[in-house]
Amino acid sequence: MATSGVELLGSWASPYTNRVQIALNLKSVKYDFIEENFYSNKSKRLLEANPAHKKVPVLIHDKKPFCESLIILQYIDDVWTGSGSSILPSDPYDRAIARFWAAYLDDKWFPSFKELETAPEDSRTTIVAKIFEGLILLEEAFAKCSKGKPFFGGDNIGYVDIVLGSYLGWINVTEVTLGLKLLEESRTPGLAGWAERFRLHNAVKDFVPEAHKLIEFYMMVQAAKASAI
Amino acid sequence: MATSGVELLGSWASPYTNRVQIALNLKSVKYDFIEENFYSNKSKRLLEANPAHKKVPVLIHDKKPFCESLIILQYIDDVWTGSGSSILPSDPYDRAIARFWAAYLDDKWFPSFKELETAPEDSRTTIVAKIFEGLILLEEAFAKCSKGKPFFGGDNIGYVDIVLGSYLGWINVTEVTLGLKLLEESRTPGLAGWAERFRLHNAVKDFVPEAHKLIEFYMMVQAAKASAI
Repeated sequence: MATSGVELLGSWASPYTNRVQIALNLKSVKYDFIEENFYSNKSKRLLEANPAHKKVPVLIHDKKPFCESLIILQYIDDVWTGSGSSILPSDPYDRAIARFWAAYLDDKWFPSFKELETAPEDSRTTIVAKIFEGLILLEEAFAKCSKGKPFFGGDNIGYVDIVLGSYLGWINVTEVTLGLKLLEESRTPGLAGWAERFRLHNAVKDFVPEAHKLIEFYMMVQAAKASAI
Repeated sequence: MATSGVELLGSWASPYTNRVQIALNLKSVKYDFIEENFYSNKSKRLLEANPAHKKVPVLIHDKKPFCESLIILQYIDDVWTGSGSSILPSDPYDRAIARFWAAYLDDKWFPSFKELETAPEDSRTTIVAKIFEGLILLEEAFAKCSKGKPFFGGDNIGYVDIVLGSYLGWINVTEVTLGLKLLEESRTPGLAGWAERFRLHNAVKDFVPEAHKLIEFYMMVQAAKASAI
């Protein structure tokens, strides 16, 4: 098991960074964390390691950079096979389904949360309805993937758990900001229970930031942007 | 090798469908192709098989639907291991790099072509410049991935070949429409040579549509949309 030569360029407030942290924890990989400063220009190191996107997270392993969180998760799973459980299922069908829901979360579901940030007040109801529709699909996905076990990945945290779970902090922010509950016991009982279990897992508990800290961070980034204009 | 019970819902003009066709050809998998009609409402079969996105392609294998072209390619590679060469490289580093470029093409580079469709005339130069910048990155990627061999995948067509190659027809459409050459020998010699080799490959040659057919198709879809308003 390789435990040296691993660095992670990221931000504690980025769900995409958090998912890499969780995956490294699950595989018991030690790493140096290099916090990218959001209040100043992007670091030279980040720009060199990820010239195509210029974004965190970047995993550096044996001096080679890896970008894009979903790709990093699969790389971690491919390289550290000897420790922790597999992140992706071994069965081709289950693997395709896990990849499908991960892509759905990143490309279709979570973008609605970003839309909410800038949406005029009268279109918010429609966006929130889309988020709830997505939760219904995800509740069904949870039932199918978990097959009655605690996680999407079965007995252990897997790919979809990490991807959805990394958003829990920002989901909470939206709940606080809009004054409503998204992961409701009455509406999506499977997901509500799953979220509690996920947050308490040893590999996760320090890596899903609390809503009030994220709100504070968000306000400071906005203020820094405004003063830079 | 499974050759029965495979169906593909798609469109001949969709690069995302074409890449699945190419992958199935590479693996010598026989399948029934079900052309989705773009001039009428989406078929009941498509809506049932892909309720989250309602889009082609959908691969149906042993009655189970698989959606999203990149996920389908990986599924094909996982299931039909006994025939044809691997689509994804076996080395974890090479695999991550292949996934990176595939995601770059779909999420960052090709969307510029879609932008061009609706962009006002005075912003076209900027978008075309972005496309050329991407081609420079892809030329470097080709040199690194191919290691002097004919394809991104080395001696054989692999993941990045299929993903970029499936766009060749629509790249041609843009060249014809704007009256310029994107894949130029003088600017990106590696890619220019690669594109010729790719198009002539047995698994590919009937599955990258010609520009004039795509233009005709595009005009008809636009006309059908206009008459439906």
